[in-house]
Order: sequence, then C-alpha cells, then structure tokens
Amino acid sequence: MKPSPTQLAALVAPIESELEAMRATIVEQLSDGSGAVSDMTGHVARFRGKQLRGSLVLLVARALGRQNDELPAVAAVVEMIHLATLVHDDILDGAKVRRRVASVNQRWDNQVAVLLGDFLYARAFALSTQLSDRMCSSLLAETTRRLCVGEIEQSTRRYDFDQAPEKVERIAAAKTASLYAAAAELGARYPDGSEEEAQEMARFGHELGLAFQLVDDCLDLVGNEETVGKSIGTDVADGKVTLPVLTVYRKATPEVRARIRDAYTLPELEDRVTHLAAACDLQPGIDATLARAAELADSARARLSTLPESAARQALDDLCGFVLARSF
Amino acid sequence: MKPSPTQLAALVAPIESELEAMRATIVEQLSDGSGAVSDMTGHVARFRGKQLRGSLVLLVARALGRQNDELPAVAAVVEMIHLATLVHDDILDGAKVRRRVASVNQRWDNQVAVLLGDFLYARAFALSTQLSDRMCSSLLAETTRRLCVGEIEQSTRRYDFDQAPEKVERIAAAKTASLYAAAAELGARYPDGSEEEAQEMARFGHELGLAFQLVDDCLDLVGNEETVGKSIGTDVADGKVTLPVLTVYRKATPEVRARIRDAYTLPELEDRVTHLAAACDLQPGIDATLARAAELADSARARLSTLPESAARQALDDLCGFVLARSF
Repeated sequence: MKPSPTQLAALVAPIESELEAMRATIVEQLSDGSGAVSDMTGHVARFRGKQLRGSLVLLVARALGRQNDELPAVAAVVEMIHLATLVHDDILDGAKVRRRVASVNQRWDNQVAVLLGDFLYARAFALSTQLSDRMCSSLLAETTRRLCVGEIEQSTRRYDFDQAPEKVERIAAAKTASLYAAAAELGARYPDGSEEEAQEMARFGHELGLAFQLVDDCLDLVGNEETVGKSIGTDVADGKVTLPVLTVYRKATPEVRARIRDAYTLPELEDRVTHLAAACDLQPGIDATLARAAELADSARARLSTLPESAARQALDDLCGFVLARSF
Repeated sequence: MKPSPTQLAALVAPIESELEAMRATIVEQLSDGSGAVSDMTGHVARFRGKQLRGSLVLLVARALGRQNDELPAVAAVVEMIHLATLVHDDILDGAKVRRRVASVNQRWDNQVAVLLGDFLYARAFALSTQLSDRMCSSLLAETTRRLCVGEIEQSTRRYDFDQAPEKVERIAAAKTASLYAAAAELGARYPDGSEEEAQEMARFGHELGLAFQLVDDCLDLVGNEETVGKSIGTDVADGKVTLPVLTVYRKATPEVRARIRDAYTLPELEDRVTHLAAACDLQPGIDATLARAAELADSARARLSTLPESAARQALDDLCGFVLARSF
C-alpha cells in the first residue's frame, strides 16, 4: 500500500517538538516589516510540503544522540533554501500547480517570483550566519552552488537524447541529492560531530535524495496530479530528458525514437506528456528507474546498521521505504 | 564636462593592485568545472561595468589606513552580489542591452538567467564563508535581504502614482544604497575597525549610493543609450514610477496627469518613454531629482573631512562628483 501523509507524520513523531521549533523559525524568518513582502511570504508558507530535508537534519542528529539547541534553526535554513529553489523552479518549468496552491509564478509574475526566491535565499543565509558555528553557512552556500550547477546543466541539456544515463543521474544528484546530503551531514556534524559519522550520513542523504529524485522523475510521467499535488508532465513539457524516458529511448527502434522526439517538441506543452505516453511504452523505463531508486534506498538503509537502535533510526529506515513507495 | 571612463580609471588608481586582485578573484570564482556554467559565466564576466561597489570597499579601507589581505576578496563578494542582482534584473525589466553586451536574458532564456543569478549569489556567499571573519557573510546576507525587499516593494508599486516621494526614495535606498553602504562599511570595519568609523562610512556609502540611483533614474529618462551602455526607458516600460516622474506628476494638471498615466500603460513598451516625454515637461522633475542627488553627494563628501588627507580620500571625494556628473 502507498504511504499516506498521515504515515509521514507518524514517521517524524520522534522529532515533532524540534520540527515545530523549525516551523516557528521559518514563519518568523518569513515575516517582514514590509507589507508587500509579508503578503507573498504568507503565501509561500503554504508551500509547506513534506519538509523531508529539515526532518532529515533532526532525525540524523537524534539517531546519533546529538543534542544542540541550534539544530531546529539549521533545519530551518535547509528548508528555506529548498523553498527558494521551489519558487525559482516555478519560473523554470512553468508548473501551474504546486502542492495544491497556485504557484507564486501564476499568482504574481516572473519578476516577483525571482525576487521572492532571492529573498528566501538571503533570509536563509542571513539566518545561517547568526548560528554560533560557521559550518552551516559554508556547507549550505557550497551546496546551493552545486544545486544551481545541476539545474543549469539540466537546463542546457534539454531535448538532448544523446546524453549518457550516467550524466543524467549525476545531474539529478547535483540538483536534488546534494541538499539531502548536506541536511544529513549537518545533522551528524553540527557543530562538532565526528568526521567519519558526518561523511557516512552525507552518503546516506545523497542516496536517499537521489532515490527521491528518481521517483519524482517517474511520478512526473505517470503520477496522479491530485495525489502528487503539483502539475504532472512538466519535465516533458520543459524538454527535460529524465532517466525513465532516456532508458526507453535508448532501447527504442529508430521509428519510436522519432515519435518520442516529436512528442517532446510539440508546440502545445501540455500535450507533450500524453503524446509521449502514446508514442512508446514508458513502463520499462519506469521499472528500471524505480529499480535503481530501490538499489540506492537499500544502500542508504544499510548505512544505518551501525547506529544504535532508536525510534529515530527506525524513522530514517522508514524514510528509505517512504521515498520509494510515495505517491505524493 | 562629463566624466569619461578614462577619468573613472584614474580615480581608482590608488587601489589598482587590489582591484586587480579583486578581478582575479571574481574570474576564479566564476570558473567552474561544468562546461555549461563556464560558458555562461564567461559571458557574465563581460558585464564588468564600473565596479564602483568593489572599489568603494578598497578606497574606504585605504583612506582609513586599514590593511588586510582579505579585502580584495571582500570586494569581490560585494561585486558578485551586484552581478547577481544585474542578471536577475534582466528578467525584471526586460532590458535588452546592458553594458553593451546582449543581456543574459536575451542570449539564453529566463530559466537560465534565474539559475545563473542564483549561482552568482551562491558563489558570493560561499566565498564570504571562507573569509577568516564572519562579519562579511552576515552583513552581506542581511544587505541582500534588504535589496530584495526594496526590489519587491518597487515591483508591487508599479503604475502607482499615489505613493509618497519619501517612500519612493526609501525604496531606492533599499534597492541600491544598501549595497553601497555595506561596501563602505566593510571597507571601514573588516575585520576589526572602529564602530564609529564603520557607521560613518556606512552613512557615506548610503548617501553616495542613493545619489547614484537618483542619477540612474534620470539617465533612464533622458540618457543616451550608446553612452549609458544599457537600454533607456526601461523603468517607464516596466511601470516603475521613479522620483523625477513622480515629481512632475504631482505638480501636473489633471489633464497632464492623465496623459502621463496613458504613456505608462501603452501596450508597446518601447514607446512608453517617448510618449511620456511628449506628454509632459520632464525637466523640472530631472532638475529636482538631480538637486536631491547633489545634496546627498555633498552630505557624503562632508563625512570625509575627518579622514587624513590621502590619494584615497581624494578619490572618494571625486567619486561623489562622479556619480552626479556621470553620463554612463
């Protein structure tokens, strides 16, 4: 059975009080004396979403028995960077619905979406500079750079069916897994954890995040718009050649390849994903991509074996299952 | 006589070697293993421009007799934040030409311009976190937040002729003067300058930056596209009610007011500034705005009087004249 939002809530129960502190910090950071800004950030607060990245900071810290009053703020910085990327992503892929609220880009215009994303980044960095240890600032600035490079590379390789699957996976890793890796690393490291544990948890976060992104790529092709809570088919509409599509393309006959490329370049962006599904059998690509995601999640799960048994460790284990089985 | 780029170069002669170090740092920061990114950042490097903000860091430090090997890197962070705002500004006001090279937005699309700006912000913050003192990170993150709030407020008040001139000036201060203030403050403060000098130099930078912006608002109305090196009339095209226009509007008859509003809402964006100039006499608004800029520059200049005489102090004094008399 597919996991539900309720099950996700149960999963993060061990860190509920820290999560509440994280949420309060985000709300506080998004409030601003300026009416114009508050109006927008109030809207952004509704993008709340799954908060997996912030939860990861707190669960890893808890699983390693680490305690620090600043961890909810560290988690808030991670979530705010993620929020900024979501707002800018709305410009990127023209998604019309994200998480069941009109996207910033639809409600205001591109100008404001750019500025609001910039504001969120600035707030996140400003908050990180107020923490007692600089590690959070430096790790997350570097991670943000990697996120951007991943997005830029993906953007410049749109409509490119000749790229290697390994490269597509590396781009997915840069644009998504890097923030998961940083979140898990910060949970283990902030401010004085062991280098070895920090690196191991970074690898855990990397694998979990990459699995999440690969599942996301599949949901964008075959997900249910209502359940997923955001527009479906945006990758195809945007010309992004994701792993499931590339897998099918590489095994297809020249005729099917031509039909796939035709679907990707239809002038009506919304029709592209429907035509793609009609042009080929996507299922083998979905299956192969989900198998790769499962492999990554298994590898991530195995890294938890050295941690002492605890509710938090179990939650991290469950999270590996959640990213695979999720339908939202 | 109007100052020329050659005269600006002479003005920064006292800090030429540090400026070279700053430029080398920027080039180094913009290079990236990724071919896609290098291609774009190579283009951005051509946005070099006047580098007034970076120069301000170095001139203030020199004028106060402060020495620190990290100052060129501090100046580079300031310039990179400015570069990021320029790249995102190209999305904002649809400018077609900036600094004589095709804008990022024209050469690539909105997607890539957003990502490239994000990359520049991330690089700037990452570099700032590598400095030995955190002050640069925290001051510039906070300044970036203020920049964004200023831009957001300006964006939400487009086509609004009922706003108070004081509010328009406050927005100009937030969106432009705040980075000049931070640059001058960092020159005085980084890493262990006196609080009093730092605050005084922040005020100097604020006044200089606000004067610069007010002159910019005038150049956008009556400048020469060739000389200014960027598109003219973009504020009007974008619906931005700047101080010179608001000044004219507030003193105009109801008939002229209606013609001004009509010019601002013409469907052909490029025609707006021409129609505006035909709808009213802009000169009194230009004159009043330049007088206000001169007042600010005089106040800034007066703050230099307590500094010991030096070539750097003279350069800062000349800079106050330059921002007023500039035609580029």
